[in-house]
Amino acid sequence: MHENVTRDDFPYWMEIEVRWGDMDPQGHVNNAVYFTYCESARISLVGEIGIRGRTAGPHGPVLVSTSCDFKREVVYPATLDIGVRVEEIGQRSFAMRYGLFLRGTGQLVAVATSVNAWVDYTEGKSIPLPAEVREALGRYK
Amino acid sequence: MHENVTRDDFPYWMEIEVRWGDMDPQGHVNNAVYFTYCESARISLVGEIGIRGRTAGPHGPVLVSTSCDFKREVVYPATLDIGVRVEEIGQRSFAMRYGLFLRGTGQLVAVATSVNAWVDYTEGKSIPLPAEVREALGRYK
Amino acid sequence: MHENVTRDDFPYWMEIEVRWGDMDPQGHVNNAVYFTYCESARISLVGEIGIRGRTAGPHGPVLVSTSCDFKREVVYPATLDIGVRVEEIGQRSFAMRYGLFLRGTGQLVAVATSVNAWVDYTEGKSIPLPAEVREALGRYK
Amino acid sequence: MHENVTRDDFPYWMEIEVRWGDMDPQGHVNNAVYFTYCESARISLVGEIGIRGRTAGPHGPVLVSTSCDFKREVVYPATLDIGVRVEEIGQRSFAMRYGLFLRGTGQLVAVATSVNAWVDYTEGKSIPLPAEVREALGRYK
Repeated sequence: MHENVTRDDFPYWMEIEVRWGDMDPQGHVNNAVYFTYCESARISLVGEIGIRGRTAGPHGPVLVSTSCDFKREVVYPATLDIGVRVEEIGQRSFAMRYGLFLRGTGQLVAVATSVNAWVDYTEGKSIPLPAEVREALGRYK
Repeated sequence: MHENVTRDDFPYWMEIEVRWGDMDPQGHVNNAVYFTYCESARISLVGEIGIRGRTAGPHGPVLVSTSCDFKREVVYPATLDIGVRVEEIGQRSFAMRYGLFLRGTGQLVAVATSVNAWVDYTEGKSIPLPAEVREALGRYK
Repeated sequence: MHENVTRDDFPYWMEIEVRWGDMDPQGHVNNAVYFTYCESARISLVGEIGIRGRTAGPHGPVLVSTSCDFKREVVYPATLDIGVRVEEIGQRSFAMRYGLFLRGTGQLVAVATSVNAWVDYTEGKSIPLPAEVREALGRYK
Repeated sequence: MHENVTRDDFPYWMEIEVRWGDMDPQGHVNNAVYFTYCESARISLVGEIGIRGRTAGPHGPVLVSTSCDFKREVVYPATLDIGVRVEEIGQRSFAMRYGLFLRGTGQLVAVATSVNAWVDYTEGKSIPLPAEVREALGRYK
């Protein structure tokens, strides 16, 4: 269902160097590690926007859900380009989409998604996205 | 949307001891580690059925997609009970659902899903699920 | 050189369930994961003593060095018993030794060591071990 | 004791991008991850030499021991330069030393060591290092 995902879909990019230790006994990158790759890209993007997370302020993003469709196995040595797009900006949450490609190619290895709620860390409940966060995220739609 | 997930939904169970090192700088279990927990439960279940994976035969399961909805954060020290149910048995794939609970309670911390294709490892393409695998998986629906 | 390490050498014990995902492409538990196992045992022991680390107070332990000798490979499924002994209590640091055995057996799979300095986290420098910490560690020599 | 370790000590270099997920609840790179960094550098070096490990032939290296002295904590975002030197070439084993520096600086964050035995994988016992391996390793002393 993601057959038509191309590099053009993604405004933000990050490079990931696959480590030998990312592989599992099947001799390819382990499924859980794709989520670490996406986390790296997400944190890089939100860091660029100026969003920092719970160590830096009283409210911020909390991961609510994430998913990944695996298209091709990845074997060390390899470098990936991860594209990120902000898919949706809701009242109290935002969704991102990730395209993982072999470096410098259109060869898609995985498509992933994430949803983050905006949370008041002290109260432990979701609150509306601040206007400046909405605006900043909007630049990556 | 998983509000009604209860322990009764799952016929197969596995216990997971949370490690301190499973936590990230936010002081709770990292999102990628939930997929390792589910992998442990999935491998335990398919091992019980007698399915072994690519190191053991010419065909077997390959993970096609996986997702997780995070309900509560988990902090070390903790033990989780992971329930697994075979959700769907298709021609060439099967889907599983996972419920992660704090040990011995109905407190749901996450709900996850996975889809595995049945693959001829040499050819690298999906083939029909063997009858005995269908039958064995059917016992965990 | 650790040929004579036996279970009798260790006063504190912790059980570790090996996860499938702890293995690497060589089909055995990855070397880095042994350090996670030892970390689990160390944190369990110091937690029992009441030492909490930097999230809980102005001073506490910081890992200065660690080592591991690998005796036998470990393959999932397996459970390990990790024995810990406080090897040395210095002015500003303490050393621990770990023996990793296959559960319920004398089969040694690894011997590890660690040294922790006692650090004033604000100043970022080592300070003398508090008397009560010395005393508590002394019970595991 | 490694106070005098400098970049000049290392003939082989590899760059490591620290991932956010490499950090632990203490907010710095977790101790076990340093061993993954060294593994990456070791595998890169032995790959360059043409040594492949057990998936590629009947004999090859097996990690026997490893150690790390932590000099400074590393916090994401950071890039490390890892220098490697072959420290010793024995009859049936070889030792390596690693210097981990903040990228482009002389700021040492860790010094690590490893010993690999040369093993006949089928027999499961150490055998003499092949002459061409000795010669190749000798270029990195």
